[in-house]
Amino acid sequence: MNMGESAAAVAVGSNSNGNNDDSGEVVKSRFKRVCVFCGSSSGNRNCYKDAAIDLAQELITGETVGEVRPVADMHQRKAEMARQSDCFIALPGGYGTLEELLEVITWAQLGIHDKPVGLLNVDGYYNNLLIFIDKAVDDGFIKPSQRNIFVSAPNAKELVQKLEEYVPVKDGVIAKAKWEVEQQQQPPQQQQQVGFNATTSTTAAAATTTTPTTLQQTEIVL
Amino acid sequence: MNMGESAAAVAVGSNSNGNNDDSGEVVKSRFKRVCVFCGSSSGNRNCYKDAAIDLAQELITGETVGEVRPVADMHQRKAEMARQSDCFIALPGGYGTLEELLEVITWAQLGIHDKPVGLLNVDGYYNNLLIFIDKAVDDGFIKPSQRNIFVSAPNAKELVQKLEEYVPVKDGVIAKAKWEVEQQQQPPQQQQQVGFNATTSTTAAAATTTTPTTLQQTEIVL
Repeated sequence: MNMGESAAAVAVGSNSNGNNDDSGEVVKSRFKRVCVFCGSSSGNRNCYKDAAIDLAQELITGETVGEVRPVADMHQRKAEMARQSDCFIALPGGYGTLEELLEVITWAQLGIHDKPVGLLNVDGYYNNLLIFIDKAVDDGFIKPSQRNIFVSAPNAKELVQKLEEYVPVKDGVIAKAKWEVEQQQQPPQQQQQVGFNATTSTTAAAATTTTPTTLQQTEIVL
Repeated sequence: MNMGESAAAVAVGSNSNGNNDDSGEVVKSRFKRVCVFCGSSSGNRNCYKDAAIDLAQELITGETVGEVRPVADMHQRKAEMARQSDCFIALPGGYGTLEELLEVITWAQLGIHDKPVGLLNVDGYYNNLLIFIDKAVDDGFIKPSQRNIFVSAPNAKELVQKLEEYVPVKDGVIAKAKWEVEQQQQPPQQQQQVGFNATTSTTAAAATTTTPTTLQQTEIVL
């Protein structure tokens, strides 16, 4: 993948993150699948690569399951990953990573999901973004409560702990309820009308293995 | 609209922005339609409201055309606005504005469009975001050439001038060419198979007035 694109993966581990608490007992995690956004480049400092490895070790301790799920396009890819995940983590990255992070934050703000979102702030990489967001709150563009839609920490261990303790911001619940009602009202035969056209052999295979579904279901309701 | 959502509009003006150059002649603009992203809140400082008014005066001098175009969902809304626009401008805003800005930047990075993108950095509002992006370049997550996908300026006059002079970054041309070929290969009857399901009367109206099209056309190819 070229630098400048973004990468993402859903890490699927056991129901335990394998960490021991102070008493030595294994702590059960609330997360089974974690969506990790990161740059397609590992950056030019070793700390970023090390942080990615640390995060992987923190997240995956049980038997891992490799699963490749074909999708028709990048919107479906993002929506599918979001729907399948229990939480989101952004490692350092570029425009694409930032866009993916802000998309899941915005979806949380709109009440489309209430899953935890975390920023792995490796060696202060995201400090200036955090300062910018604090200014957006101070200047009235983001509600103070919505500042807490995401959490951040300098290392994987602290970040995972914050994500485990995360309490959803409640501002967007009405929007979520509304969209869920709309989805339930759709008659089954209407859902069959919408699929994904694809023209190359690769994406045609993706389209045929994807269950036909509505754009609303695929793109918005997670 | 509640604070925390984002607002956007396509400003449609005459083919001239009405500005005089040093010789007193009216300068023709290359832009007929400008997509403006901004917070749904005007912020708690007067400078943000003033900047929005200045920008409107800079952009719209001819006879304006009010047009409301129904869409099926937020993805189609964003893609349609992007497709209809000749350039993009972000005023100060919150998560949603930042996400919309980064989406059009990422689309430019991927070669999906080569339209100018501008940040109206009112009273340094976006300074820390710009510092963060410079760090992303320094640390190898964004190519130096891609730093110039967007321009920024402290006031509307300077920003519009930079947008007029904008030269597209060429890194993503291959991806665009590929997608255009895919689009051309689609037989017409396949395009008719994909529309937008909608359940409420409002969105049903939107679906019927929307020309059936492929997801790739609607969402990706601008």
